[in-house]
Amino acid sequence: MSVIYQRVALIGLGLIAGSMAHAMREAGLAGEIVGHARSAETRETARQIGLCDRVTDSAAAAVADADLVVLAVPVGAMGAVAAEIGPHLKPGATVTDVGSVKQAVIDAVAPHLPAGVHFIPGHPLAGTEHSGPRAGFATLFRNRWWLLTPLPDSDAAAIGRLGDLVRAMGAKTDSMDAGHHDLVLAVTSHAPHLIAYTMVGVADHLRRVSGEEVIQYSAAGFRDFTRIAASDPTMWRDVFLHNKEATLDILGRFTEELFVLQRAIRMGDGQQLFDYFTRTRAIRRGIIEAGQDTEAPDFGRVGLPPAPKA
Amino acid sequence: MSVIYQRVALIGLGLIAGSMAHAMREAGLAGEIVGHARSAETRETARQIGLCDRVTDSAAAAVADADLVVLAVPVGAMGAVAAEIGPHLKPGATVTDVGSVKQAVIDAVAPHLPAGVHFIPGHPLAGTEHSGPRAGFATLFRNRWWLLTPLPDSDAAAIGRLGDLVRAMGAKTDSMDAGHHDLVLAVTSHAPHLIAYTMVGVADHLRRVSGEEVIQYSAAGFRDFTRIAASDPTMWRDVFLHNKEATLDILGRFTEELFVLQRAIRMGDGQQLFDYFTRTRAIRRGIIEAGQDTEAPDFGRVGLPPAPKA
Repeated sequence: MSVIYQRVALIGLGLIAGSMAHAMREAGLAGEIVGHARSAETRETARQIGLCDRVTDSAAAAVADADLVVLAVPVGAMGAVAAEIGPHLKPGATVTDVGSVKQAVIDAVAPHLPAGVHFIPGHPLAGTEHSGPRAGFATLFRNRWWLLTPLPDSDAAAIGRLGDLVRAMGAKTDSMDAGHHDLVLAVTSHAPHLIAYTMVGVADHLRRVSGEEVIQYSAAGFRDFTRIAASDPTMWRDVFLHNKEATLDILGRFTEELFVLQRAIRMGDGQQLFDYFTRTRAIRRGIIEAGQDTEAPDFGRVGLPPAPKA
Repeated sequence: MSVIYQRVALIGLGLIAGSMAHAMREAGLAGEIVGHARSAETRETARQIGLCDRVTDSAAAAVADADLVVLAVPVGAMGAVAAEIGPHLKPGATVTDVGSVKQAVIDAVAPHLPAGVHFIPGHPLAGTEHSGPRAGFATLFRNRWWLLTPLPDSDAAAIGRLGDLVRAMGAKTDSMDAGHHDLVLAVTSHAPHLIAYTMVGVADHLRRVSGEEVIQYSAAGFRDFTRIAASDPTMWRDVFLHNKEATLDILGRFTEELFVLQRAIRMGDGQQLFDYFTRTRAIRRGIIEAGQDTEAPDFGRVGLPPAPKA
C-alpha cells in the first residue's frame, strides 16, 4: 500500500497508539511516525522497542509538521493535550482522537484547535485488557469497527483520507453523531464494564472472607468479568466521568431490569426467567450474524497459543 | 488407559453428558456407554451420531446393570429422574450428577436412592454457550475443576473411583461441602450469568428503539455478556430457582456495590473509581496465576479457528 500521511504524530503511546504504529508500519501507510508520551518511562520503553521512528520529549515537538495527529490519551487528558499542541499544528493538518467517549472530547478539544486544522473525532471499537507501549500489535483493528463522529463543518476530503487510513489498517468505518455514539457505547461497552468491575469487587470482598476459592474455582461467567475488569483504570475512570449521563441512564434501566429478575427468582417464577433467557439468546445470534463474534464455543482459554507479540 | 466402570449410564444427552461420552471413549474408560434422553428428537440425534453404544427409550432401561449412573439433566428435573431410576439401580452402583447446584440436588435425589447405592454429587466447572447432543467434545473437561460434594456417609472407595474417572477425562478434582459449593458458585457463576442476561435484556429493549446498532457495534464488554447470556435457558432457570438464597444474597451485595459506584460517577469522584478499578485488576492476576485463564489478550474472537467437532 502507499503512504497516506507523510508524517503521523501519536500523542500517548498505549495499546491503541502502539497498535496503530505497528499497523501503519506493516502496511507502509505513513512516511514517518513520531510519538510522544507524558511518562518518561513510557517514552524510554517506546524508544527501546523502536515503536516509532522518533519519540519526542514534548507533545508540541511531536506534532510539528505532522499531517495527522492522533490523540491517544485518556479522555480526561484530551483537553490539556489539545491546549498544548494547538499553537504548533501545521495548517491543513488533521487531528483525530481514539477516545471511547465523543461529545466530551469534542467539547474539550475543539476550542483549542486553530482554524484550518481538521478535527475528526474517532473511536476504534478494539482493545484488549492489556495496556502500555508493549501491548500493541498490528492486527488489533482487523475486522473491527472504527467509528468517526465528524463535526457538521468537517471537511469531506479530510474525512475520506482518515477513513482510508483506518480501513488500510484493517478496520471497518462508519460515521455517526457524537451524542448517539455515546448512548450506543454506554449500552454496549461502558455499562457492561462498570457491571463487571462491580461483580469482581463483590467477589473480592467475599474472597477476603472465604480465602482463595473464588479465584481457584472461577467459572466461565466470572472469568470473563475479571478479564473485562482488568482493563486500564485511568482510561475507564475517565470514560465514566465523561459519559456520565448516558452511563447512569443505562445503569438505571439495568437495575430496574435486574430487580424484575431478582423478584422472579424470589417468587419462583420459572416461566418468566425462561422467557427472558430465551429472548437474550436471540440477540447473541444477531451478533454472530453481524460478524462481531464467532460461533466457536468458548470453554475457557486455557492452553491457547501465546499472545501475538509486538 | 484402562476401563474404570464396566457400564456407564448417561441420563440426559446434552453438552456435558455428550462430552463425557467422547472423553470416556477416547480414553477407553468405560466398557459400555448407555444413554437416555427424555426428548425423542435428542435420542434420535444421539443414535445418528453414535454418541453412545446404546440409546434406550427409558431411563430405567439405561441404568439396568450400570456401574456408574450420571444424572446430566437440568437441576429441576433431577428429583423426577431419581424417582424413576431408583428401583432399577444395581446394588453397589455409584450415582453422580453434574448439576450446577448441589444442596438442592442432594435434597431431591437422595431420598429416592436405595441403600447400597453410592450417591456422590458432582459439578464439572466446564461448559460452553452451546447445548444439545451435538455440542459435546472430548476435551471439554481438560484442566477444568470437577468439584465433588460427597455426603458425610459416602463410601471412600466409591469417591476415589469416581475421582479416577474424572481425572482420566482431564479434569482436576476437589471436594467440598454442598452448601459452601453453592455460595462459591453463586459468586463465580450464577450471579454473573443473571447479570449478563439482564444487561443483554436492557440492550434488547434499546435495540427495539434504536434499530440494529447495538448488535452492529457490540464492543468487547457486551460481546462477552451476550455469549454468557446465550446459555441454555432451561438449565439456567433451574439454577436460579434451586440456588435461590445464595444467588439473591450475592445479587443484593452486587446492587449495593453498584450503587456506590453509580454515586461516584454522579458525584464525579474519580479517585474512588480509580481505586476500585485498581483493586479489581489484582483479582484478575490471581486467576491467571491459578491457571484458570491465560494472559493472551482477548480482542474479540473473530477469525478464530472453527469449533472443535465432536
